[in-house]
Amino acid sequence: MTAAQRVVIAGAGFAGLYAAKALRHLDADVTIVDRNNYHLFQPLLYQVATGLLDPSQIAYPVRASLRRSRKVSVVMAEIESVDLEERLLHTTAGNIAYDILVVATGSTNNYFGIPEMAEAAPGLKTLPDALHLRALILAALERATRCSDDAERQRLLSFTIVGAGPTGVEMAGAVSELLTVVLGGDYRGLSRSEATVTLLETRDQVLATFAPRLGRRAVKTLRRKGVTVKLGRQVVRAEHGSLVLDDGSRVDAGTTVWTAGVQAVQPAGLESLPRTGQNRIAVSDSLSVAGHPEVFVAGDCAALMVRGAPLPMLAAVALQQGRHIATVLEARSRGLADPPFRYLDKGNMATIGRGAAVADIGPVHINGFIGWLMWLGLHLLYIAGFRSRAVVIISWAQNFFFFDRSVRLILDPAARAAAASTEDR
Amino acid sequence: MTAAQRVVIAGAGFAGLYAAKALRHLDADVTIVDRNNYHLFQPLLYQVATGLLDPSQIAYPVRASLRRSRKVSVVMAEIESVDLEERLLHTTAGNIAYDILVVATGSTNNYFGIPEMAEAAPGLKTLPDALHLRALILAALERATRCSDDAERQRLLSFTIVGAGPTGVEMAGAVSELLTVVLGGDYRGLSRSEATVTLLETRDQVLATFAPRLGRRAVKTLRRKGVTVKLGRQVVRAEHGSLVLDDGSRVDAGTTVWTAGVQAVQPAGLESLPRTGQNRIAVSDSLSVAGHPEVFVAGDCAALMVRGAPLPMLAAVALQQGRHIATVLEARSRGLADPPFRYLDKGNMATIGRGAAVADIGPVHINGFIGWLMWLGLHLLYIAGFRSRAVVIISWAQNFFFFDRSVRLILDPAARAAAASTEDR
Repeated sequence: MTAAQRVVIAGAGFAGLYAAKALRHLDADVTIVDRNNYHLFQPLLYQVATGLLDPSQIAYPVRASLRRSRKVSVVMAEIESVDLEERLLHTTAGNIAYDILVVATGSTNNYFGIPEMAEAAPGLKTLPDALHLRALILAALERATRCSDDAERQRLLSFTIVGAGPTGVEMAGAVSELLTVVLGGDYRGLSRSEATVTLLETRDQVLATFAPRLGRRAVKTLRRKGVTVKLGRQVVRAEHGSLVLDDGSRVDAGTTVWTAGVQAVQPAGLESLPRTGQNRIAVSDSLSVAGHPEVFVAGDCAALMVRGAPLPMLAAVALQQGRHIATVLEARSRGLADPPFRYLDKGNMATIGRGAAVADIGPVHINGFIGWLMWLGLHLLYIAGFRSRAVVIISWAQNFFFFDRSVRLILDPAARAAAASTEDR
Repeated sequence: MTAAQRVVIAGAGFAGLYAAKALRHLDADVTIVDRNNYHLFQPLLYQVATGLLDPSQIAYPVRASLRRSRKVSVVMAEIESVDLEERLLHTTAGNIAYDILVVATGSTNNYFGIPEMAEAAPGLKTLPDALHLRALILAALERATRCSDDAERQRLLSFTIVGAGPTGVEMAGAVSELLTVVLGGDYRGLSRSEATVTLLETRDQVLATFAPRLGRRAVKTLRRKGVTVKLGRQVVRAEHGSLVLDDGSRVDAGTTVWTAGVQAVQPAGLESLPRTGQNRIAVSDSLSVAGHPEVFVAGDCAALMVRGAPLPMLAAVALQQGRHIATVLEARSRGLADPPFRYLDKGNMATIGRGAAVADIGPVHINGFIGWLMWLGLHLLYIAGFRSRAVVIISWAQNFFFFDRSVRLILDPAARAAAASTEDR
């Protein structure tokens, strides 16, 4: 009888949290480390950014999620580096020794080195990102109500989303709906027709991972909701409050959101591991790393090649991979070979505001209201364990029936100062 | 026929917002100015600070509150100063000319010049204050889970509330309940018996504005909930993580909240107006200022003497005063004399956590569960116009039946860094 294995999980996103949950049946001392004290339901960040949901409706304390996992310790700390030789995870809360390490530290924005882009177009990857964007959007409206210069007012009322993957499409739809609800209403001096919402995409289609037919339906729905969709155009730089495209044209960029590219982030010390594009670590089909069977990588950080392409950076992939690591460790504890990971693709979904969504479930393509109802049902299912489904249902129902968007609080100090000032940026 | 009067309201708290609402029936161009884009239901701030409610459940956009008041303009700006001669309000969004000015800029913490107190004990007056305190409390728990030094651990698990008015009593009860819910549960390594919650009060009773019998009941309830109540002791200074009292004794002050004193805040330019204690401006019984019938002061900023004492700084007083200003202006528009303000005292209430409250309604004194039900009903009534009573009811019901406290998010960057670090403060 040996001492219980020490399993250390770096990151409490979908991969890390579901690994920790699945490991509770194993004889192991599990430690999960995250820089935040909450797990974040990232797919709904855009609803926080557009004033529909509160942070606590998509973020839940890691400790509360793992309340029933008695053998899991939770450590809130910045993860600094991994020492593969000494088998140590270095964190701001001290060093943690491991027998098994799970790297699940997710991804961040990739600006591809485009000049001034990081400054001009914040991303939508974290809860502070979403609160910051919410404040920027609302501050722009406050400034526009007081602006008598037509060009500046037009710039303030321009909202640009770069990248038309699911996040970009959902954000564009939600921003447009927010504007429709508040302009002319709470902001009496402003009208929806003065405002522009632009969705920019390098490819000639939106939702490239979906069936082309659904991409076309999404474009139609977005246009009906007042979003200008520009396909096949690349942003080359940001300057003087506008974005310069590859054909030399310009787009007003009063408030810009970046959803066009992400790249994996990992602690230092893993530089020797083989990588694919987007800084992802190449993993075997058991999700471990070549030469280091004690190191697993899961979620956005991992690149598992399936038929020549890496599995996409999706919550569903991360969640299933997290669970699979527990399956591998269980097999090992019984002296069996590592079972390979098989991704069960349950389909892709994206919502385009109130009452419209597209769903791509193998051969089945669904759009419109039925798609939206499916989207709603599925998200309510996944949000289980979250604060309270009832609270989220009420917020969504309120939005659906009353067109209300009441979580419109400017809390970000810089945005508050900007909103209250007449100074130009 | 003259042009409509320009009424400018400085501050969108209870006094300012209710003045604006009541003025919609008058032929006047009303402008309301606030540094924030939301009205705040301050009496429930402590529930945000202790992870029970979300910000949007106690903060509502000013524009949404005044949606039906077509003649009211909302300006989000810092109020800088008043020019009484030129009749101008200077703000960060420009100067606003007025015929009638309503000063309703509220109050802030008063530390009475106690050394290092402002640093050691943040107050609970604003939404950022509440979010900051929530993060401080949770960060202290995170650090305590990793702390092996007994004395330091004890300090981290000490929570002190200075001042036993309604806010202090409610905060002490709520902090103690939060600890009871999470220590030993989500924080398995910590036990409630290690933690201390101390309520300090200079006077020899709590809730001095209530009937003495209710104060004594409140003390009993607090003690039953694990709060140490220290009466008749004054804090003389803060040093090295503890508070020094006037008898030379010390109290551990890992996380300290200041609710012991407030003072009115007003824009510059009003220095010539007569004041009473707490920096409040003395007003006539019509709420205007001597020598300036065009300037009204309401809420915490105003000191209206009634039987030798100024009316208390309470939401109910502010709300009624805001409404009264509309009544005065209406009387003036019909050539009548200013009607005097009469405060209708509907009683005092304070809740002491789950299922216990004290209420003081003239000769009627109520405590315990019945008091709590009354408190609940009354707050739900007042929170009308807020996001959704249903959402608040669900949060409260969840807390009552499941002892849950799930809005436990550390979003404050400094507190996040502190929680993730082993460094001493």
